[in-house]
Amino acid sequence: MSPERPLYLDHNATTPVDPEVVDSMLPYLREHFGNPSSGHAYGRRAHAALEEARCKVAALIGARPDEVLFTSGGTEANNLAIRGTAEARADRRHLLTSVIEHPATRLPCDALEWRGWRVTWLPVDAQGRVRVEDAREALDAAGGETALVSLMHSNNETGVLQPVAAIAALARRHGVSVHTDAAQSVGKVPVDVTTLGVDLLTLVGHKLRAPKGVGALYVRQGTPLGAVTLGGGQERGLRPGTENVPYAVGLGVACELAGRRLSQGTQAMLALRERLWTGLRDAVPGLTLSGQDAERLPNTLNVRFPGVRGGAVLAATPEVAASTGSACHDGGETASPVLRAMGIPEADALGAVRLSLGPDTTQEEVARAVVVLARGWKQVAG
Amino acid sequence: MSPERPLYLDHNATTPVDPEVVDSMLPYLREHFGNPSSGHAYGRRAHAALEEARCKVAALIGARPDEVLFTSGGTEANNLAIRGTAEARADRRHLLTSVIEHPATRLPCDALEWRGWRVTWLPVDAQGRVRVEDAREALDAAGGETALVSLMHSNNETGVLQPVAAIAALARRHGVSVHTDAAQSVGKVPVDVTTLGVDLLTLVGHKLRAPKGVGALYVRQGTPLGAVTLGGGQERGLRPGTENVPYAVGLGVACELAGRRLSQGTQAMLALRERLWTGLRDAVPGLTLSGQDAERLPNTLNVRFPGVRGGAVLAATPEVAASTGSACHDGGETASPVLRAMGIPEADALGAVRLSLGPDTTQEEVARAVVVLARGWKQVAG
Repeated sequence: MSPERPLYLDHNATTPVDPEVVDSMLPYLREHFGNPSSGHAYGRRAHAALEEARCKVAALIGARPDEVLFTSGGTEANNLAIRGTAEARADRRHLLTSVIEHPATRLPCDALEWRGWRVTWLPVDAQGRVRVEDAREALDAAGGETALVSLMHSNNETGVLQPVAAIAALARRHGVSVHTDAAQSVGKVPVDVTTLGVDLLTLVGHKLRAPKGVGALYVRQGTPLGAVTLGGGQERGLRPGTENVPYAVGLGVACELAGRRLSQGTQAMLALRERLWTGLRDAVPGLTLSGQDAERLPNTLNVRFPGVRGGAVLAATPEVAASTGSACHDGGETASPVLRAMGIPEADALGAVRLSLGPDTTQEEVARAVVVLARGWKQVAG
Repeated sequence: MSPERPLYLDHNATTPVDPEVVDSMLPYLREHFGNPSSGHAYGRRAHAALEEARCKVAALIGARPDEVLFTSGGTEANNLAIRGTAEARADRRHLLTSVIEHPATRLPCDALEWRGWRVTWLPVDAQGRVRVEDAREALDAAGGETALVSLMHSNNETGVLQPVAAIAALARRHGVSVHTDAAQSVGKVPVDVTTLGVDLLTLVGHKLRAPKGVGALYVRQGTPLGAVTLGGGQERGLRPGTENVPYAVGLGVACELAGRRLSQGTQAMLALRERLWTGLRDAVPGLTLSGQDAERLPNTLNVRFPGVRGGAVLAATPEVAASTGSACHDGGETASPVLRAMGIPEADALGAVRLSLGPDTTQEEVARAVVVLARGWKQVAG
């Protein structure tokens, strides 16, 4: 825990790359460098690796390999899902999303709103959950005009799981495509496209121990989807550009590892998270937990320190690397819109710190985090 | 030259990653995994690496670091340049491009045409060059309506250099933004944004010994450009998504190496290419060279075998890995639109083989390529 290597409790921002994942990519960074579109031996080798990786990604989420498109990450996958649906379903002009989505969902929906689409922004309850009833009403009221529901699988700040399956079931009755941004969920909890009943699903490499710069969009066979980026015919023309073979291979291996470790890792992480929560709660009187009564990701703890800013606590605790909210909204100068949407008062929301564990997090680290965060809080609270 | 490792003469499709580039990325795949948007030590380390890489990319093309945006590759960079200009300059509804552009330029221009833009598709002469005079006429005729000129720096199939600087000078008088796709040129010939006078320039990692899946768009300060993909605020909001730090670092090092090796490498490659051409010409009566009288990339040789299909020659020569045209158009079932645009008859164009050398190509390899390609041709020609 040197100043250069603080205790890392920010796995929702990004994860270390698994050493097995790095090793799997190296042959494709070194000798097997072909362009998968080339007809010669180098190209065929690269193409085979890409398709094997696609199978592995598909297997983790219960998809068919030809339903998986590789992208440069979650932002691109969300943009393609939302804007690609809008391109393909111009006969409908309404979409449903929530007020707690990541900017990579919120902003494409915003842009459609400016272009004349009607967007229903579903609120959340005090636990940070979208209500199925709200979605039902919005779908019924839209009278068949809805093209898409886009609802995140779990929130990046609170870890609260959303009722995607229940809402997808309603949406499908109306012939509506359903997209879920499962960036934070895949690898932490079981995510299966059939169980969820979704048509489009975003997954992101760097949230599950593959590198930053790769992700995938699941597209159920038959789902109307237009291309957003235009170019060569790669990825069935829906995501053109020479494929990033090494990272696709790495994503495949990361998905394979995640699938293998899922049930065991989840239990271990839940136990550690509970230790972190009870430890902190006992050390910091008045500490609160956002989404306490909701089903949450096993690794995520969003606490609110009383009477101080979360950013100040973290600044006083350089031994711990964590964040006040999403990495895109780091700094903590303003209150998190996600917490505000839960009805948490601004002054209270400003106390938030998100602590997100990883599979390598140890009991010792959690114990140490409790000590230093409590000390940091005392220092700031004075 | 095993069946698995044929002689690689397809560097325009993709290049091997330079070992120094791989080595430079490894620390960012292993220990320095932070999200550049995170405020803690891991994030700051990643952010610093990203900015250092940006400086290196900028240095190669004579840009300022804050004028360089990292992208997932050339396709994304071209789409952003073209569609981002259209977003930002909706007051104008005309653009100029050529008939020999890569699909990643051609298709976004096509899409604008469908949306009501007027597109002037500049033809090429028999050497595969756009004529400055044609551009001048089109710009004058458009009467201030032109938003953008997008003209590739060199053609991917023939290697023919285009008169970008001369056309940019004309365009700037009309207040027109100028984009060049320099994917094939950067690292092979000097490319400087000031000398060229361009506002937007695409460069692509995997064409210059960085990996597939990273590129950059140069955006001259003050150039009107809207975002195309929407999300977090990364890359000044113009290219959101968690940054691919390892590949950005690799691209930086590749640019540094390319700059250092440029003048010496160019001379060596030119000499080898001439040997390849004269050797083949002597061995294959009737062989012709596309763009023979034009200034071309030093590594590219697009020859036409007489009376046969280029794809058949390559199929008969598994010892050589090359292509009939662009990798995106491999297979050679139809004649290359680039060669057809030069006025080359279809039957003749079908004989094309593109041989593209790299800095590691040796005299022995070139001599061997001459022998086996000539033998392959004889076998097919019967």
